[in-house]
Order: sequence, then C-alpha cells, then structure tokens
Amino acid sequence: MSTNGGKSSGGKDTPPTPGHQVILGTKVPLRLDSGAELSGFTVAYQTYGSLNADRSNAILVCHALTGDQFLADPHPMTGKDGWWEQIVGPGKVLDTERYYVICPNILGGCMGTTGPKEINPETGKPWGLDFPVITISDMVRAQALLLDELGIEQLFLVTGGSMGGMQVLEWASMYPERVFAALPIATASRHSAQNIAFHEVGRQAIMADPDWCGGNYLAEGKRPHRGLAVARMAAHITYLSEQSLHLKFGRRLQNRKSVTYGFEADFQVESYLRHQGITFVERFDANSYLYITRAMDYFDLADKHGGVLANAFRNTPVRFCVISFTSDWLYPTDENRMIVHALNAVAANVSFAEITSDKGHDAFLLDEPEFHRVIHGFINGAAEHRGLVGSSALAPGERAP
Amino acid sequence: MSTNGGKSSGGKDTPPTPGHQVILGTKVPLRLDSGAELSGFTVAYQTYGSLNADRSNAILVCHALTGDQFLADPHPMTGKDGWWEQIVGPGKVLDTERYYVICPNILGGCMGTTGPKEINPETGKPWGLDFPVITISDMVRAQALLLDELGIEQLFLVTGGSMGGMQVLEWASMYPERVFAALPIATASRHSAQNIAFHEVGRQAIMADPDWCGGNYLAEGKRPHRGLAVARMAAHITYLSEQSLHLKFGRRLQNRKSVTYGFEADFQVESYLRHQGITFVERFDANSYLYITRAMDYFDLADKHGGVLANAFRNTPVRFCVISFTSDWLYPTDENRMIVHALNAVAANVSFAEITSDKGHDAFLLDEPEFHRVIHGFINGAAEHRGLVGSSALAPGERAP
Repeated sequence: MSTNGGKSSGGKDTPPTPGHQVILGTKVPLRLDSGAELSGFTVAYQTYGSLNADRSNAILVCHALTGDQFLADPHPMTGKDGWWEQIVGPGKVLDTERYYVICPNILGGCMGTTGPKEINPETGKPWGLDFPVITISDMVRAQALLLDELGIEQLFLVTGGSMGGMQVLEWASMYPERVFAALPIATASRHSAQNIAFHEVGRQAIMADPDWCGGNYLAEGKRPHRGLAVARMAAHITYLSEQSLHLKFGRRLQNRKSVTYGFEADFQVESYLRHQGITFVERFDANSYLYITRAMDYFDLADKHGGVLANAFRNTPVRFCVISFTSDWLYPTDENRMIVHALNAVAANVSFAEITSDKGHDAFLLDEPEFHRVIHGFINGAAEHRGLVGSSALAPGERAP
Repeated sequence: MSTNGGKSSGGKDTPPTPGHQVILGTKVPLRLDSGAELSGFTVAYQTYGSLNADRSNAILVCHALTGDQFLADPHPMTGKDGWWEQIVGPGKVLDTERYYVICPNILGGCMGTTGPKEINPETGKPWGLDFPVITISDMVRAQALLLDELGIEQLFLVTGGSMGGMQVLEWASMYPERVFAALPIATASRHSAQNIAFHEVGRQAIMADPDWCGGNYLAEGKRPHRGLAVARMAAHITYLSEQSLHLKFGRRLQNRKSVTYGFEADFQVESYLRHQGITFVERFDANSYLYITRAMDYFDLADKHGGVLANAFRNTPVRFCVISFTSDWLYPTDENRMIVHALNAVAANVSFAEITSDKGHDAFLLDEPEFHRVIHGFINGAAEHRGLVGSSALAPGERAP
C-alpha cells in the first residue's frame, strides 16, 4: 500500500515532496539474518520517470552509508541538490525520460524507512538499540518486497556506489533472475580490516558521547551531536584522496594571514571538516549510523558462499559492469578487481573500468566525465540487449535540441 | 642544574629510574615562536652510554607524537620495553657502548618536561589551555638549551622518526654547526592537509568529551578518557598500512565463532583498536595531545624560508640520510623525497633509502632488518668521518663474542 504519495518529477524546479512510503511485511514478517523478524515496517522511496507498459525499464539505485532516497530531488531537510543529480534526470546517464528510477531509503536508515529512530510498535517508543542488527542482505530483501509491491518482476538495472555497490552485488547474488544488468561502483565484496577499524572509531565516538544515553537519546530528549560529528569527520577524510585534500585546501589558512597559536580552525581543511560534522548531525540519526556501519562491517559475500566469491555468481544471467577509481583508498581498485575475477571465474558477462581520478572515493558522486561516459555506454548497450527502444546517443548531461 | 638524577644504564635488568630532570631558562627565558616566554621550565630526559673525553659521541634522539624519553628503558608507567629497544643499546645500531645517547621529553609533553599538565608557577594550578602553543622549533630550542647544560657543543648525530624527524630537520636548519650528521626517518618537511585533518578529528574528539572541561579537567578532578581514546584509535589506524591490518587481523573474529549481531567487538581489529585507546589514556595527557598535534600541523619548513625548502639548508655542513617506508601513507616516500630534493638543490651530502615494508608508518619502531642495516651503515660511515674510533662491523643487534 502506497501512502503519502505524489510522484516527484526529478525536475529542479519542483518543490521537494515528502516522497513515497509503503508499509511492507504485514502478512509475512521479514526474517532477518540475525534471526529477528520485522513485520509492518515502512520503506520510504523516491521515483523518477515512468514505468513502461511491459515494466521492463526499472532501475534500482541503492544508496551509500549516509545517502538517502533523494537522489535527484532537493533534500527535504537541507534543501541541497540530490546526491546523484549528476547522473539521474532527463537526458542524463540514468535518463528519466527512458527509465523508471527507484531509490528506496535502506532498512535501518533515518529518512522514513524503518530504523532505530522509528517507533517500535511493541513499546510505543523509539527502537534505539532494541532495533535488530541488519545486514546488507536484509536491506536487499526489503527492497525486493518493495519491488513486489510496485509490481516489478525484473529490474533492468541495479546500481549504486560504495555500500550501494554492496547491495548491487547482493541483488545479483540473491535474485539473479530479477536483475538484467548490475553496475556496482567503487565497492568491495567484503569490508576490509582498515574499513572496519574506521567504522569502529566512528561508533566509539558516538557511544563516548554522554548524550548518546546508551542508545536511548530520543526518549531522553537528547542527541549525541558531538560524537556523531566526530564520526562523520573521521569518515569524511576516507572519502577523499590525499591529493584532493592537497589540491582543495593544502595548508591554506582560513580567513587569516597567519596562524593564531591556538586551537581555532586556522587551516581551511579544519574549517571544512568541522562544517562537514556540523551539517551532518542535522540530517542524520546517530543510531542509524551505528547500524549501517555494522551492516557494512558484516558484509562478506565470499564467506556466505563457502569462502569462494565466485560461488555467489555461479550460472548468473546478469551482465555486469564494475567501476573503480584510481585514487579511492576506501574501496581501492584491487577490491573491485576481486569482484571481476570472481565473475570471470564463472564466465559471467562482465566489463571493468578503472577510472583515473584524483577525487578519491567520492568520485562516483562528482563530475567525472570519463566515469559518466563509461557507465552511459554500458547502460545503453544493456538497454539494446533488453530490447528497450530509442537508445540515446546523447552525451551525458546533454539534452536533445 | 640536574635534579632527580641517577644515570640509567640502558640494561634490561636495570629497574626503571625516574630519569633526569633539569630546569632551564632560569636566567634568560625561552622565547617561543608565538611570542610567549617560558622561564624556569623543566626538561626530563634519559641518557644511555657515556660521553667520551672530547664530547664528540653524543646522539640526540627526538621522539614522536606519543613517544617519550624512555627509548631503551622499561616505561615507568606501563612497564613496557622502551620504544626504540630494537635500535638503542649495547651492540645495537645506536651502540651505547660507543655513543652517548640522549633522549629528552619534548616541550609540551607529559612525561616530566614542562607541558600543559604541569603547574603554572604564576597561578599554582595546572597550565591547561593557558600553556602557550608551541612549535617544532620551540621543542628544538629547548633541546639546545639542554645540550648547553650538558656541555655538548656539537652532536655527532640527531635522529628520530615521524615528528622526531621534523625535529631533526629543524636541528639541521637552525643549528647546522651543532649537528655533524642528521638522520630523519619517515617524516616530512610540512604537515599535509590530510594529516592536519586527522589531527583535527582527534582534537575534536577530545574537546567533545564533557570531561575535558574546556581544558581545565585536572583542576576539576576529571580526565577526558573517552575522547582521548577515540583520538588515539583514529590516529592509530594511520600508523599502520592497510596491508598490515589485513595480515594482522583480516576479518577474523575475536574469541567467537560467528558475529553477534550487536555492537561488541566482534572483530579482532575492533578489539585491538579499543585496547589501543584504553591503554593510551593511562599514560598520556589529553591537553599534551592537543598541543603536540598543533605543533605538527604548524610545521612547514619551506614556509619559514621564503617558500623554498632548499633555503633551510643552504651551505649546510651536515651530512644527511633520509629514510622512508614503502607502505607509510602518513609520511609517504614522496614527502621524504621532497627533503632529499631540497638537499640536492644545495649540494648537501645526502643519501636516501626507501625501505620496502608492509608495516606502514610504524615500521621505524619495528623489527625491519633492512632499515637497521641501512642506518647502521650510515652511522658507521659518519662515525669514521667524525674520527670516532672503533667503528663497529657488527650486524645490528649482535654482540661481540
């Protein structure tokens, strides 16, 4: 059942809509990897474009750790552009005049889908740490129920970067018959020790904040803003490359001619990081941050398949394109290539591109023409094979005259 | 004037001594880069070996951010081995049977040298944030006063890794006539934007802890343990390489067969990091951490010399050896090579070695035989040129029969 509807157009002049919400798991509860069950949970999502008559042009975009469903609308809380406006819209790489693009907020999130900040129906209070720990698979299972609800049997494409890419891999592995093409970007088949370590720092920063209140801050009318800001700052460094920080900020001072011999933000990079922390806490829930980072830590696709990653994709009919960025040290090319090798081992249809970029992990969110050209080519080719007519020859971002 | 003396022998069976302390700046106060003046400040230091008759065999070891003067004694608070036991001792690379090794706790530190946790004589209370912000140059100026006190005109060698290497570069630049040879290890001539960013995360973690009390925690009987632990955890990740974390921990679980679907330390790497945080706060002062990271952020040797690093070393008589490690991403080879290029530009006597290691930045503290061989060779060669007789042909760590 769809509530709170009103389709968004994806146009920049459209005022932000509250988005769609649907309640799922009402007849059969969703069984999670942990063994817990969720019934009557909400999934909030945005759509762009129109579903065609044979329901074959649907694209699922899976968002990253701190992303949400507002990929091509202004964000309803910050007013900022959607996080993938570069890619999604009329005439763009994910052309909303050709495709029906769906982006749900993930299970455990904080933008309308059920997560630790929502009300636990059994207690009438926010879930907090009583919310069950979820996995990437659980997120994907919830998305599959959403597609059932929308009457979409098979996705033309599932794509996403970072944690979104993990969901793409799970989609192709768990529901190969429901995915025509898969485009995981800047991701990994399992979270590395270093990445677990960075997540643990963020979680410890949140939990060290007395206003976290053992996870019960909403009931106590508090918010662990300081801890969450520190977590965000630490994580944000990992999203950028050393070179991009050097080019963007170097050692330049912030609105001063010389250092102050104090602990103010003398350097531009300090001021920038503080700003990242401060603005993040306005839109994100601290417990969601704990749950989502945990889901990423737990992600290990090979481990679920007898320690052999290729087993996750045996006999897959899905056509893949895997993308990495040269300066991404969070999910470096080697991690992405590991996915390609596994797909090669089962003779899957896979292409791979390492994009030269100095922008680090965040390159998938930014203006990277080569990246846009490569994925545009893959999507166009897949669309032809899928029999989606009117394949666009436009360059990314360009409109027909 | 030397107080609280009692020379330590560097032998492992010697019980830890409280170390030497000397009060400096009693006649003429030390003028800091900030313009503030420090008078009657204490420097705590350890020595190993004996000064020879012509006072030509002194080696100054400069410690890193969280190091201290106990480089070859058990640490008096933790009981752990000294931080450079691999390198310093009888028959070792810094052979205490040949050289007189001095290691002072830096200005701003928390192991006996004056820093923010010591008593401000003007108020009778701990300095806290009233302590003046210090720079790497200030640390070196204080060390020069210590050498005056010890009657050492010229050092045979000054060495150190990481922030210790920054002090080495300042020594060679500020007091070239007092340095015969300089061995900066795994360091940089200026702190990068990424490194400033990581430091800022650590400082924000400390300052976000309500027990920091605006820097006044000692007077208020509190300690910002949680914030300081988070700062240490974030920093510790940067000391290791991605590969060393992978080899050391990978995704192995901590004393359990499967994940717990909770927020305990399921993974070994989480447990390890938490341990690093917990043990660090027992021995380190949070305000010292703020001051020392700030000194590192401010370090930019070229900036002090008209933007041209080579100007820092023009006409230098010092012979240099610069060392980097392949997997060090905190002070990568490129940063070290920048120092070598500047020295080449002024036709200085410099050798450079990039050591292949998977151990990351911390490699300079660990058992890296190739590293030990290279610096042993450099030191032996320099000793011959300095006319220090009895140059050792022993392999590092070996003793004569």
